[in-house]
Amino acid sequence: MKPDGLIKQVSLSVEPPSLNDTASDLERFQKNLSPLLDGRPLQTTLASLRDLGPALRGGEWQVVATLADIGDSWRLIRVDPTNHPSPVLGLAIDLGTTTVVAELIEVGTGKVLASRLVYNAQKEYGVDVTTRMMYAERPGGLSELRQVILTTMNEHVVALCAETNGRPEDIAAIVIAGNTIMIHLLLGLDPSSIRREPYVPATTVFPILTAVEVGLNVNSGAPIYMFPAASGYIGGDVTAGLLGTHIPDEEPLSILIDIGTNGETVLGNNGFLLACSGSAGSAFEGCGLEWGMAAQPGAIDRIRFDGDRLIYHTVDDQPARGICGSGLIEALGAFLQSGLINRSGRVNLALPGAQNFKGHPEILLVPAADTARGKEITLRQGDIENLIRDKAALYAGSRILLANTGMTFDDVERIFIAGNFGQSLEIEQAVRIGLLPDIPRERIKFIGNSSLTGARTALLSRDAWRRAQEIASSITCLELTIEPRYFDEYTAALFLPHTDLSLFPSIL
Amino acid sequence: MKPDGLIKQVSLSVEPPSLNDTASDLERFQKNLSPLLDGRPLQTTLASLRDLGPALRGGEWQVVATLADIGDSWRLIRVDPTNHPSPVLGLAIDLGTTTVVAELIEVGTGKVLASRLVYNAQKEYGVDVTTRMMYAERPGGLSELRQVILTTMNEHVVALCAETNGRPEDIAAIVIAGNTIMIHLLLGLDPSSIRREPYVPATTVFPILTAVEVGLNVNSGAPIYMFPAASGYIGGDVTAGLLGTHIPDEEPLSILIDIGTNGETVLGNNGFLLACSGSAGSAFEGCGLEWGMAAQPGAIDRIRFDGDRLIYHTVDDQPARGICGSGLIEALGAFLQSGLINRSGRVNLALPGAQNFKGHPEILLVPAADTARGKEITLRQGDIENLIRDKAALYAGSRILLANTGMTFDDVERIFIAGNFGQSLEIEQAVRIGLLPDIPRERIKFIGNSSLTGARTALLSRDAWRRAQEIASSITCLELTIEPRYFDEYTAALFLPHTDLSLFPSIL
Repeated sequence: MKPDGLIKQVSLSVEPPSLNDTASDLERFQKNLSPLLDGRPLQTTLASLRDLGPALRGGEWQVVATLADIGDSWRLIRVDPTNHPSPVLGLAIDLGTTTVVAELIEVGTGKVLASRLVYNAQKEYGVDVTTRMMYAERPGGLSELRQVILTTMNEHVVALCAETNGRPEDIAAIVIAGNTIMIHLLLGLDPSSIRREPYVPATTVFPILTAVEVGLNVNSGAPIYMFPAASGYIGGDVTAGLLGTHIPDEEPLSILIDIGTNGETVLGNNGFLLACSGSAGSAFEGCGLEWGMAAQPGAIDRIRFDGDRLIYHTVDDQPARGICGSGLIEALGAFLQSGLINRSGRVNLALPGAQNFKGHPEILLVPAADTARGKEITLRQGDIENLIRDKAALYAGSRILLANTGMTFDDVERIFIAGNFGQSLEIEQAVRIGLLPDIPRERIKFIGNSSLTGARTALLSRDAWRRAQEIASSITCLELTIEPRYFDEYTAALFLPHTDLSLFPSIL
Repeated sequence: MKPDGLIKQVSLSVEPPSLNDTASDLERFQKNLSPLLDGRPLQTTLASLRDLGPALRGGEWQVVATLADIGDSWRLIRVDPTNHPSPVLGLAIDLGTTTVVAELIEVGTGKVLASRLVYNAQKEYGVDVTTRMMYAERPGGLSELRQVILTTMNEHVVALCAETNGRPEDIAAIVIAGNTIMIHLLLGLDPSSIRREPYVPATTVFPILTAVEVGLNVNSGAPIYMFPAASGYIGGDVTAGLLGTHIPDEEPLSILIDIGTNGETVLGNNGFLLACSGSAGSAFEGCGLEWGMAAQPGAIDRIRFDGDRLIYHTVDDQPARGICGSGLIEALGAFLQSGLINRSGRVNLALPGAQNFKGHPEILLVPAADTARGKEITLRQGDIENLIRDKAALYAGSRILLANTGMTFDDVERIFIAGNFGQSLEIEQAVRIGLLPDIPRERIKFIGNSSLTGARTALLSRDAWRRAQEIASSITCLELTIEPRYFDEYTAALFLPHTDLSLFPSIL
């Protein structure tokens, strides 16, 4: 058992009762346990109280207590007989607007037993957070959205357990990194005030609830740790992402760009953290694109132009089913290199690979015969425009953050790109299309799903969880919609790489 | 609002947010609330967090917070807009083996809005606690018994709310006085170790759980306060009863006899408390008798012999439906006075009123024409024997307690008789049959359902709730089954009033 995780186990030998010593099970158990709890009180859950008697007698008064650090006290999650211990599992969840990714972790070793991505079933109620908040304002809407996400998360539990022969009741803790609105919807908190000036959420710091309270079908007393947010639009997913990058602990000025549905960007170092978000990035998650998808088996995650034709790679080398974020970035770059699109993203129908579909230009990625479903996989003119709008919003966000601190991209020593993408990404192409600034490439690092990494890190480290609280409270949030220069910056970035080519000197 | 109850309300004026002050709702609410919480931390429930935003905005930043004292901290149960407050209700419950009595209380005034008694639906699984514990040991048995009692309690909630036009979510706290086994079954705690030497329960002190955790359909974050027990057989119902009598606070040596299914007896004063229990008393609750019933409308609660015939009274003056505890005690006394039964309880068939039913003697209480169901109400020979066994067990229990302290009934200054009976009771008849000792009658007091009184008292007084913790831990328990003199005492008391008539000099 990792001794410094949010969950710890303690072995105990308990004195059996007799007619001369008829103290209750709990009393005699606590007498032995209390000295091991660093002075913090013990909170007993109903589930652990149910375990206690059978465990003490079944284990001949030798038991293992599973405890969760919940801040001011320890919560007793479970008691097992020493001669018949149960596995202790944890879930790390990235609760995203578009996708929900969960990892089932063996808490003792930190080993990831299984990992799983599904689309957030709330997608049916709107692609972005704003439309979902609007839906939540309808009568019954909030409760409906809550049920939908609970169903998605509980399906994760069932599937991950089935895959690993685990039992839901062995899941002793869940750490969730989610944006503020997703967490509000999960908990049934009215998000309407987040949508209106001055954009205030019900809370940014979430109490450590129990699974039964939230409605998650794991051990009923399992604590649900939700990463603290900085504001309504800078959520716990950003806090979790920052935790993993160590930006808040180190000197070098850095930028974290989370290419998710909400496109959060943070500029800072160990001295300050300045963040903004815009509904930008969902196209890079595949949202709203005909063939967009998450980085699941069969997703095109790499693509390049070999001078003659497009060469692609799919996740797990499966027949192509669609294209995910890293594939989309590389595709735009490759199209631009090959001339298949021009600087405003317009498809050149004169070139091979470009074609017409019901009067709209598109670019063929995979011929029908090579795909999983026997249908051509293409990127349409509208898809390309969506991607350009999203990359423009992300670039403009970084520019505004820098302008607010009187700095430029030249001052930035590291850029971390987070996203639920494939295994890797051709950084050059991300710069070519102007998603990333034209700085030395070695300063740019692709870090995958940093929110999920942060959630896993906190589950396995109490110190990391505490650090997350400090990080969230030290973030200053910038509201782009009331930032006067934002619209100009955005418009200027609606080209590949940018209207101002002097910003991209290395790109021809 | 009673300022010293377990539930308190606090009015707050909260600063509205602006673009220059975008702290979350909870943060600004807590800033104003914290100074009013006597230094104890605030525990936020999910339900109260859901209320917060709508209440702050609906009340134009003037709100009322409903808080529960849960020991080391305050639990936030609800937040209402000041201009639209909701009622704050509480439930006091006597969770008995045979009956479950609940009172719906307006916490602000202490007013009992409605009161309701139902039979514990677990009766179908066994009349006494032992048979229920045995059932709980079958596969699925514990969970089944738990569901059954939850259903009974949730029906109480629905019915009490319907009667008063209240809403279940306005019930902000529940205080339960129940014996240790009933509480174990309610919580799904395995009671099997209570049934076997050394008779140890899972716990005697129950954590303050939330309604959603326990499965009670009131405000999901409402704290469930369960009176602490002294042992597996001296439960929280006894603690609650003692709280109401003030025996533990005063000098006079006193006895509390709870004529319930488990027949608990406590001897003591402000210096010591000694308790025992035996499965004795359920006949006086009507259990196992052909016409036995609780003190509900139509129950014969008073009965006397006017020299010629039996005169009875029913609860609410309704047509007779059966006979309850106080009626049973008075009936036995009246039968004895009239000669309808002799000192061993045998019916004298020669007298009018005595009759034969399928070869068994019985005594007619109400002719068919006068009853609610058009059927004769009688007490049968077997019923009378059941009652004598129960009164013998209760009397023997008190004698053993006294013997253990080297005292006699002459040293006892007060006897409190608790039971879920009618409004009053002819004490003389209780002495005549030997249920109570032959001491000056003014020392004997009938106090009704003292467990329910204790539960109500604690709901309305934090000090009383704290005092209950001290009381429970200061009770010494005597196990009658391993007490060598008990069987002799019991056998000697199987007569009316007793085999040793010198113990009852005033009874002719």
